[in-house]
Amino acid sequence: MINRLCIIGVGLIGGSLARALRANDAVGEIVGCSRSAEHLQQAVELGVIDRFDTDPAAAVAGADMVLVAVPMGAMETVFRQIKPRLAAAAVITDVGSAKGAVVDAAQKAFGGVPANLVPGHPIAGTERSGVAASFAELFQQRRVILTPLAHTDAEAVDRVRGMWETAGAEVVEMGVEHHDRVLAATSHLPHILAYATVDSLARLHEHDEIFQYAAGGFRDFTRIAGSDPVMWRDICLANREAILEMIAHFQVDLTALTEAIQARDGERLVEIFSRAKRARDEHAPR
Amino acid sequence: MINRLCIIGVGLIGGSLARALRANDAVGEIVGCSRSAEHLQQAVELGVIDRFDTDPAAAVAGADMVLVAVPMGAMETVFRQIKPRLAAAAVITDVGSAKGAVVDAAQKAFGGVPANLVPGHPIAGTERSGVAASFAELFQQRRVILTPLAHTDAEAVDRVRGMWETAGAEVVEMGVEHHDRVLAATSHLPHILAYATVDSLARLHEHDEIFQYAAGGFRDFTRIAGSDPVMWRDICLANREAILEMIAHFQVDLTALTEAIQARDGERLVEIFSRAKRARDEHAPR
Repeated sequence: MINRLCIIGVGLIGGSLARALRANDAVGEIVGCSRSAEHLQQAVELGVIDRFDTDPAAAVAGADMVLVAVPMGAMETVFRQIKPRLAAAAVITDVGSAKGAVVDAAQKAFGGVPANLVPGHPIAGTERSGVAASFAELFQQRRVILTPLAHTDAEAVDRVRGMWETAGAEVVEMGVEHHDRVLAATSHLPHILAYATVDSLARLHEHDEIFQYAAGGFRDFTRIAGSDPVMWRDICLANREAILEMIAHFQVDLTALTEAIQARDGERLVEIFSRAKRARDEHAPR
Repeated sequence: MINRLCIIGVGLIGGSLARALRANDAVGEIVGCSRSAEHLQQAVELGVIDRFDTDPAAAVAGADMVLVAVPMGAMETVFRQIKPRLAAAAVITDVGSAKGAVVDAAQKAFGGVPANLVPGHPIAGTERSGVAASFAELFQQRRVILTPLAHTDAEAVDRVRGMWETAGAEVVEMGVEHHDRVLAATSHLPHILAYATVDSLARLHEHDEIFQYAAGGFRDFTRIAGSDPVMWRDICLANREAILEMIAHFQVDLTALTEAIQARDGERLVEIFSRAKRARDEHAPR
């Protein structure tokens, strides 16, 4: 049970967690915080939070659980802002898509990563953003990855784990670097490729017509290019090295495929497509 | 009204058209043809076709409409096989994803593209294939592109147009080369990128784990990598030049994005992502 939950960044993720905890009677009071009083007022009206404060320090006062759900680029600033008023017993966690950068930000802001900070990442979301898109079921049957450090307090990890499990998620733990590599592969690379594809087609002379003939496969393929640009700028900068490594890795395969097309090597094409289809059908069922 | 429709290649596309025409009482008899008597027997049992013949020449005898719905690589062979028994008044159309290659195949097989051959391409389909996946509604509110040549018989075009409209499609006409360029951009490039992405991740050391953490966005992005490898080999070879052009075009944009990440150029990243998001939101609504 959480007595007072403070959510900094009441968007799709923060809002959905608030709804899920509320639906399970797992939280007393929920205090919201973000830069926009208007958005926070909307969150109150939607019943997602009980009250709000646009000052992070005031918002965290008295909270026993603090969820930082802001874009990666704002993490360090938020950590600095909340530092003076954090309760000694408070547990802090975040939802950033790159954990190395969160650890760095905490290191800088707190002068060392606090033992009661549990870096976390729910593998959930849609291409929509904002509290209006939030819903209590977002985390059901989704994974949440926690990346505690060697000195992270075990009880803090347990409390964060319990919170996400209450929201319906399956919680796993892994190392910071390993998380960042896995996410670069499964999430960051596909987003970058989808953005690059749409941008590339939009540059074509006949772009209006081209989009007009896009069918269902294209819509699925490019859905993630509708994601929030600022959030994805932050992710690209925060997980820069793992992302660049995955792009380079992908380029090797795209080049091999391109060369097979150039060489009219049908056998090689079937080999590549079949291997990909097998991997997809096996791991990502419809 | 079609008296006898012969469908060569009774799969998702051919089967769905048969079902749609039947549902609209727009066809007398439907004769199926493919290399597998077993698949054809299944099509009869599903009520998709009335009877079948595994010999294309025998199957087209007496048909006033012939739909060739085989992979691109089999077009020329099928054209050669049906040539001797085609009725003089028969209209022939196809569903190939690359029209230049169909025109070439017809040129070679018939010694000139027949005036009653109307190259066509329904922009519809799923990543599934086979007659068991076919359904009458597949073409509703979908576009079918016809690419008649200068000497194509206008009445033949009208008959093919009417057939697809009966199935619920919106029919448009465009030039062969233009079609191949538009499809390379909106369909062929995304399929190649999806295949390359999945293949790339499958090559990673920790591939099983990586796929395990793939979320909804990844599943949407890679759904088309579940498509039939042989069909896509044929498309890559049939529309080779336009596809290579689109890959090169895409590489320019991916390189620009990669350089922005390397240079930690957040402003440039937001600019690219925002432009892509606008293009996507405008043209490919959710």
